[in-house]
Amino acid sequence: MTAVDVELQLSVENLLARYVHALDDDRLEEWPDFFVEQGRYRITTAENFEGDLPLPIIYADSRAMLRDRVSALRHANIYEAQRYRHGVSSVLVERIDARAARSTANFQVVRIMHTGESVLFASGRYFDRIRLGGNGLLYEEKTVVLDSRAIDTLLAIPL
Amino acid sequence: MTAVDVELQLSVENLLARYVHALDDDRLEEWPDFFVEQGRYRITTAENFEGDLPLPIIYADSRAMLRDRVSALRHANIYEAQRYRHGVSSVLVERIDARAARSTANFQVVRIMHTGESVLFASGRYFDRIRLGGNGLLYEEKTVVLDSRAIDTLLAIPL
Amino acid sequence: MTAVDVELQLSVENLLARYVHALDDDRLEEWPDFFVEQGRYRITTAENFEGDLPLPIIYADSRAMLRDRVSALRHANIYEAQRYRHGVSSVLVERIDARAARSTANFQVVRIMHTGESVLFASGRYFDRIRLGGNGLLYEEKTVVLDSRAIDTLLAIPL
Repeated sequence: MTAVDVELQLSVENLLARYVHALDDDRLEEWPDFFVEQGRYRITTAENFEGDLPLPIIYADSRAMLRDRVSALRHANIYEAQRYRHGVSSVLVERIDARAARSTANFQVVRIMHTGESVLFASGRYFDRIRLGGNGLLYEEKTVVLDSRAIDTLLAIPL
Repeated sequence: MTAVDVELQLSVENLLARYVHALDDDRLEEWPDFFVEQGRYRITTAENFEGDLPLPIIYADSRAMLRDRVSALRHANIYEAQRYRHGVSSVLVERIDARAARSTANFQVVRIMHTGESVLFASGRYFDRIRLGGNGLLYEEKTVVLDSRAIDTLLAIPL
Repeated sequence: MTAVDVELQLSVENLLARYVHALDDDRLEEWPDFFVEQGRYRITTAENFEGDLPLPIIYADSRAMLRDRVSALRHANIYEAQRYRHGVSSVLVERIDARAARSTANFQVVRIMHTGESVLFASGRYFDRIRLGGNGLLYEEKTVVLDSRAIDTLLAIPL
């Protein structure tokens, strides 16, 4: 049988679940706390990612930058009434060492407009590096690779 | 590492999986048996849920009421040929005590019309209270919170 | 509590995750290696499956046939630029004996066109028979049951 590290697998899935519920519940102020202090976050497209182009759509390399982004979103999107619903699946986890792991997962996000209409907003992969131990799991690095290059230039929420 | 209760987590995910397969397979007669005798089931919208408005779209507080609902659906929808496909993900489980747990999960449902066309039918969250022990897990309470208020007034199947 | 076989459950979910990531990453050459040498693969529709009609859309009963199919796809689709993103959920696993298990899972596949547009491409169920032991889990049989009969006659990738 494939040796799956049960504790690690379910801990990483739990981290992903808490992460997307925070986003979907619009608890954006909690978002930076899923990262280590110098955590890196970027959103890019599959095209750029595979071509290894250094052009992320969004890039941050500290909690402070993530907090700034939340502030900006709160001011910009004051009248918005969309909702988002993430579906995360097929989570593959690989231990790096006693203190770190890598994971890959698929996601799909539905956007529900204030009119009630629902559209498939985004799909892609999460490539994450996670710090283990201490007070729970935290993202050292989270790379969101979007399948489509036709994305909304104003991303209303983090992904 | 986050302490995930492995047995509880997978048992709750298994309950959710059996629940949605019963619905998607149109085995509606089995649906009430996922609940305790006085189990509560309701479907509401996020708007109502967050405003704490007492206006569920569907409400039942016993297996008998759920059975009545199945009977009604069987008579009303005799000519229907839709299919439904649930996607459930990001399941967060919290133990209340030795005999009960709570869970939150995301869902998306695709409806496949008899013409072959597929549409995103509904998305939202399940907020569940589950009785542990005895003969397997059963729902004491299942609240379906739809993201969109633009729902079909005639819900063809339970969610 | 429902007795879930933790190791088996997570090993089967891991197999499914590796399987769909290989497909979504366009690593089609790896696809036959998820099967035993005489593994059976078929794609059918729910209508045909339930009517027990012997008319699969695609049928193969060996790795060699799967390899042929990959070659054909590589030649036919040389100019394609679609991407696919699977979402797999609600995995139910049942042990047959020490060397085999069955699983049922729901899937949804999004197709991302080279224009950037995303559409819900397919949904359905995987009915799998899995060989345990030896060098990891392998499919003895994988049946893909599509919800819709309105499918693309030229399936660009395996499902």
